[in-house]
Amino acid sequence: MKIIGAADFKLEREVEMGTAEHQETVRRIIGDVRQDGDAALKRYARQFDGVEVDELRVGPEELEAAYKSVDAGFLAALRQAAANIRAFHEKQKRTSWFDLQPSGTMLGQIIRPLRRVGLYVPGGKAAYPSSVLMNAIPAQVAGVPEIVMVTPPATAGTHGIDPHILVAAAEAGVREIYRVGGAQAIAALAYGTESIRPVDKIVGPGNVYVALAKRAVYGAVDIDSIAGPSEIVVLADETANPAYAAADLLSQAEHDELASAMLVTPSRALAERVQAEVLRQLETLPRKSIAAKSVADYGAILLVDSLADGVELVNKLAPEHLELLVAEPLELLGAIENAGAIFLGAYSSEPVGDYFAGPNHVLPTSGTARFSSPLNIDDFVKKSSVISYSKQDLLANGEAIMTLARHEGLEAHARAIQVRLENEGGGRGHE
Amino acid sequence: MKIIGAADFKLEREVEMGTAEHQETVRRIIGDVRQDGDAALKRYARQFDGVEVDELRVGPEELEAAYKSVDAGFLAALRQAAANIRAFHEKQKRTSWFDLQPSGTMLGQIIRPLRRVGLYVPGGKAAYPSSVLMNAIPAQVAGVPEIVMVTPPATAGTHGIDPHILVAAAEAGVREIYRVGGAQAIAALAYGTESIRPVDKIVGPGNVYVALAKRAVYGAVDIDSIAGPSEIVVLADETANPAYAAADLLSQAEHDELASAMLVTPSRALAERVQAEVLRQLETLPRKSIAAKSVADYGAILLVDSLADGVELVNKLAPEHLELLVAEPLELLGAIENAGAIFLGAYSSEPVGDYFAGPNHVLPTSGTARFSSPLNIDDFVKKSSVISYSKQDLLANGEAIMTLARHEGLEAHARAIQVRLENEGGGRGHE
Repeated sequence: MKIIGAADFKLEREVEMGTAEHQETVRRIIGDVRQDGDAALKRYARQFDGVEVDELRVGPEELEAAYKSVDAGFLAALRQAAANIRAFHEKQKRTSWFDLQPSGTMLGQIIRPLRRVGLYVPGGKAAYPSSVLMNAIPAQVAGVPEIVMVTPPATAGTHGIDPHILVAAAEAGVREIYRVGGAQAIAALAYGTESIRPVDKIVGPGNVYVALAKRAVYGAVDIDSIAGPSEIVVLADETANPAYAAADLLSQAEHDELASAMLVTPSRALAERVQAEVLRQLETLPRKSIAAKSVADYGAILLVDSLADGVELVNKLAPEHLELLVAEPLELLGAIENAGAIFLGAYSSEPVGDYFAGPNHVLPTSGTARFSSPLNIDDFVKKSSVISYSKQDLLANGEAIMTLARHEGLEAHARAIQVRLENEGGGRGHE
Repeated sequence: MKIIGAADFKLEREVEMGTAEHQETVRRIIGDVRQDGDAALKRYARQFDGVEVDELRVGPEELEAAYKSVDAGFLAALRQAAANIRAFHEKQKRTSWFDLQPSGTMLGQIIRPLRRVGLYVPGGKAAYPSSVLMNAIPAQVAGVPEIVMVTPPATAGTHGIDPHILVAAAEAGVREIYRVGGAQAIAALAYGTESIRPVDKIVGPGNVYVALAKRAVYGAVDIDSIAGPSEIVVLADETANPAYAAADLLSQAEHDELASAMLVTPSRALAERVQAEVLRQLETLPRKSIAAKSVADYGAILLVDSLADGVELVNKLAPEHLELLVAEPLELLGAIENAGAIFLGAYSSEPVGDYFAGPNHVLPTSGTARFSSPLNIDDFVKKSSVISYSKQDLLANGEAIMTLARHEGLEAHARAIQVRLENEGGGRGHE
């Protein structure tokens, strides 16, 4: 992990997603599913997953068996995490409102849950129960009545769907699960097949085919944002424990060779100690090769002149995860403009948020924290405006409305007002 | 306008956006602006707008002149509309919150305005002051400190920027205006040039080049949804005034030959009277040819068996605008699941909302009201999660967090907890 002056650091961020060949494959798969429905899903299960799928939907007996097969300690931890996630997202809920005016006009905003949401869950090693909770619970808390999960029927080394995933889904309120993965699963959720009714929105992580398929069906349905490689920035002062900082950087680096872990600090002493700790801790990690490559390619220790300069740099980086490993984290919080999740102080290690505390771990990556937010309740609701205009207000304001419409050359707009003024008000409106 | 049974109506909704040639043009323009900056903007102004642009930024003297040139009645109407829009959007504002737990943990959600937002305003006949208000005021109310407007330097038949647009921008709190239009303006907002600093989000309507450019820069910046042709559904019972219904349908139809205006009613008598009224009112409309083509191609009167069936059809259509021209509109409101803006009763003609009442006229089109919302304050803010975990909670829950991390094969995540438990707690946390 190189130590470099912040001034010499150049931010590179453009991520290309998939080749033309990937795109063509995805286009073809979506077309097949739209044409052949379930038959196409079963064909692709044979081709890609090496599995004969008779029944696409997972039955209650399979769910029961899953509960019996998972470890009690895992289930207890999962349930506590689910309760914490639910409690946090409950606080994001909002209600419809109406504004009644003395003139008789009522204006308002209705907030309603989406009707049907699809959750993609990858198979194999990337099948994370925590991700099932983080994607499904906000939908459940938002009041979405139908949450549908799709996940590959099997992948190399596994047989069937991982029971931990099934249990996490059940705990998160998912009642409808299909064994289908890849671009074909996204196509089924977007356009429907004989077995799977289409949804209004698709969320959840996936490989490049899944990501490209989500992008392709966007418009027919809504999608969540497509995540880039994960990132952490640790902003630390000389009071930080170097072992904590290094461990947190490595927890990010082990995700993916493309993951980015950076320390920003005004303290050269800390920089050097963290650098040494990273090397030391790296040695015994099971995912050492991934973490080492991530650290070498996308890791850095950036020296800044002051914590204030560090905050400025953080706002430019707009990291997915930000740890404030400083003596007075609250004093910096108000100046942090761009970050997905902010972890304050020595005990708020990133994994606390990844798994347990309650806030969502689906966060804006690649600098999009400048304009995007953690997955939250608002992602699973829609709003409608309501206008109940009174006769009194129409008579009083009809002339102004017509003035604006006519200025824009939209005479039929003006006449929709005029026909009412002539009929209701005797003439052209107020006075 | 054909009267047809709802059962015989087939919903066609797929909209292709732009040809490969359009896309190639846009790709080239964006590349040019990224490479040549201001020089490219001025070159395209010459080529596309036929204008030599010396100074890209609009100066204060031009704004002053604009105020002097607009009609007093227009200005008064515009100001009242702006006040109403501001008042409605103020009610959408939310504050950051923190949840302090007895264990010493603090969780929260910070809500902050975006720093810099770009607003595209088309030139020529599509330069709508109302659209400037509807896009800029929510950003202003959200607290966005920098709102930047771009608009073509001129188009056929106009010289310079329409003063009404300048005045609307000033009323809506826009302090930075550049004379640049088309895909090149979108590229400048996304990537910046010598004169124009990049923004975090781009909103506002535009032609196919603008829409394709917005889609192309998405990721580098955020964009609003790309609007399809405008739509209205009027759900009416036998008590509706046929002249009102017809006028409202035509106000939508005059927008665009692709606009869609539909009446849904269980009353054949009303259907026939509205059909006759549409023909009668169409005769004297200045934009008769546009409205007539819209009505012929995308207009319909759909007969349903009951108002309840009408509501069900409306939910499938998920219209941008919905009027409830019925005796008891409030009784239907609770069953309407999908609609951008809902207008209740005889006095809530759609133009009341388009121009004046306060709710936004930027609404989800093409059935996307199933999952999208009117433009609102949430579109101009971002959230950050905050986790300040206490030592007590880390010691109590560390074991559970490690269980979940290790189950997912992420040992470095577990060790980030473990290093703290070993250092702070004496051992592995709670027994």
